[in-house]
Amino acid sequence: MTATLTNHQVRLAKRPDSLATREHWRFTTEPVAEPAEGGVLVKTLSLSLDPAMRGWLNDARSYIPPVAIDEVMRAGGVGRVVASKNPAFAVGDAVYGTLGVQEYIVIAQDDLKRNGLVKIDLKAGSIGQWLNVLGMPGMTGYFGLMDVGQPKPGETVVVSGAAGAVGQTVGQLAKIKGCRVVGIAGGAAKCDWVVKELGFDACIDYKAGEGAVRAGLKEHCPKGVDIYFDNVGGEILDQVLARIARKARIIICGAISQYNNANSMPAAGPRNYLSLLVNRARMEGIVVFDYADRYPVAVAELAGYLKDGRMKSKEDVVQGLDTFPETLNRLFKGENFGKLVLQVAQD
Amino acid sequence: MTATLTNHQVRLAKRPDSLATREHWRFTTEPVAEPAEGGVLVKTLSLSLDPAMRGWLNDARSYIPPVAIDEVMRAGGVGRVVASKNPAFAVGDAVYGTLGVQEYIVIAQDDLKRNGLVKIDLKAGSIGQWLNVLGMPGMTGYFGLMDVGQPKPGETVVVSGAAGAVGQTVGQLAKIKGCRVVGIAGGAAKCDWVVKELGFDACIDYKAGEGAVRAGLKEHCPKGVDIYFDNVGGEILDQVLARIARKARIIICGAISQYNNANSMPAAGPRNYLSLLVNRARMEGIVVFDYADRYPVAVAELAGYLKDGRMKSKEDVVQGLDTFPETLNRLFKGENFGKLVLQVAQD
Repeated sequence: MTATLTNHQVRLAKRPDSLATREHWRFTTEPVAEPAEGGVLVKTLSLSLDPAMRGWLNDARSYIPPVAIDEVMRAGGVGRVVASKNPAFAVGDAVYGTLGVQEYIVIAQDDLKRNGLVKIDLKAGSIGQWLNVLGMPGMTGYFGLMDVGQPKPGETVVVSGAAGAVGQTVGQLAKIKGCRVVGIAGGAAKCDWVVKELGFDACIDYKAGEGAVRAGLKEHCPKGVDIYFDNVGGEILDQVLARIARKARIIICGAISQYNNANSMPAAGPRNYLSLLVNRARMEGIVVFDYADRYPVAVAELAGYLKDGRMKSKEDVVQGLDTFPETLNRLFKGENFGKLVLQVAQD
Repeated sequence: MTATLTNHQVRLAKRPDSLATREHWRFTTEPVAEPAEGGVLVKTLSLSLDPAMRGWLNDARSYIPPVAIDEVMRAGGVGRVVASKNPAFAVGDAVYGTLGVQEYIVIAQDDLKRNGLVKIDLKAGSIGQWLNVLGMPGMTGYFGLMDVGQPKPGETVVVSGAAGAVGQTVGQLAKIKGCRVVGIAGGAAKCDWVVKELGFDACIDYKAGEGAVRAGLKEHCPKGVDIYFDNVGGEILDQVLARIARKARIIICGAISQYNNANSMPAAGPRNYLSLLVNRARMEGIVVFDYADRYPVAVAELAGYLKDGRMKSKEDVVQGLDTFPETLNRLFKGENFGKLVLQVAQD
């Protein structure tokens, strides 16, 4: 059967200095191979598009090796097993793994673990939710907030990128844990949704003009910020540093405002970092892969919240592998509304 | 007796924009009053001059209120009780407290606690040592390293301002705890002393030319930096951030390189702060006053090390209250060699 299939792929053609555009990618096709003994063949259904992907394009030491030139672009996604020579996976199984930006992937037995291929239960959540609250963004939000942030009832939690994948999990989870939650997002529509649909106490529109973030933090965090979950870096991080409370915890999850700088590093560091000293506060980085052993615990808890309606999720689904270059960049322009998903095939 | 005494004092005349110079201070004299019932009169012997003093001159929210205009400059110091109407203090007792930059202080009963006046045992350490290893700098180094840093044997600890008061305690204590210790200090003399006298494994001379810190860290911290005790901020903090190891702890104790900026805030933040993310590291501020309940424990431990010779201390003693403006600035020019002490009177 597989002999007749063609695999469309997106490969890295050259490294971008700033925003990656179509010229940095190469579209290839190749026949789909049969899996060898112990291997599986997975058909990609939907891929997760995340800010971190931009970092993987830089030829720099980081928490994960860069994507190599000519390599299929790395991406996590949900798929279906379409051929299997491994007793742990049956044809028709829904799976999550590092499928890559391509229609099919053959994973050899020795690569299954590194790929992170796991069966998922589509009764616990939709494909979109498995890429969102129950996927890497949700895991990032869960362990960042719970392990690094350690929220206590009554504390004030601020989260940037509030309408994004990580932000929506962080904010809703913090509400469930009894915190006052203030989001930061771009535009009135996102802010309205975050407050009205997700139940945040307030949301600051960072696009509302000069001084909007400063004024919003002052208004909505009168006792200061106990936990800041930072997805954006830049000027917003500095504004929050100026408003932190005694013993605050700042979770450094990302810095989307900085990822497309020419030299791949922030244009400036947080000038207000000495606020950490004055307030005996800490700023700590998190990489979600460190918590892989505990994903099932988090998934079970979060799936429960989805089921009983205490948590909602929103995905922004774009169709078509060929739209990948432009779709990815919606993240950096703040154009996505909810978790950005690239649908490669219908289930 | 006290009616015949005159108190020479140094008061803040106006707030400095950058370095405080003689014009920012006012020298006053006033008669020494008798203590009221429950109060004590203390004669200043030696005062601690510390980088943090510069911060107290700024009219800004911080961990401690600013020194007011016309107020006697705040300073911790060692003195002798010369009159007492309080049974807890006897004439002749050696004491440590917030004596201020003046020759005498009358402390009312209600102010004793806020002043922090405590009896000290000059058999446990000299006056200089009570302002150094056994005083605030020592307490800062002890709790910053032990509580925030949590050193483990075999880890690499880097400390800036290595020949300074806090730095010498941090480095020697880290050696005692089984760490590899690399100092950063200005000039060959300080670096030699830190290695030969204090037993650091290495010391990087940040004045040795462009790239010296980067090259030194690379050479002396081949496995990366597990703990960085930061007294200086600025470019050195950024260089260390670029070399931190997985799960590193950065203790933000001060930023002497930045204290004299015109707007009282760092000219730039640490550009490499995203290294915290890549390395799942944390950066945390410490204010020594939070540990006041546990000073006696730390003093006992450190006094033991001084006694058995495992720890040394070096004070840089300048004589004369009238030299205060220029003596203080030696800190910011890196001219002091060891803990800077202003001797106001002979014991």
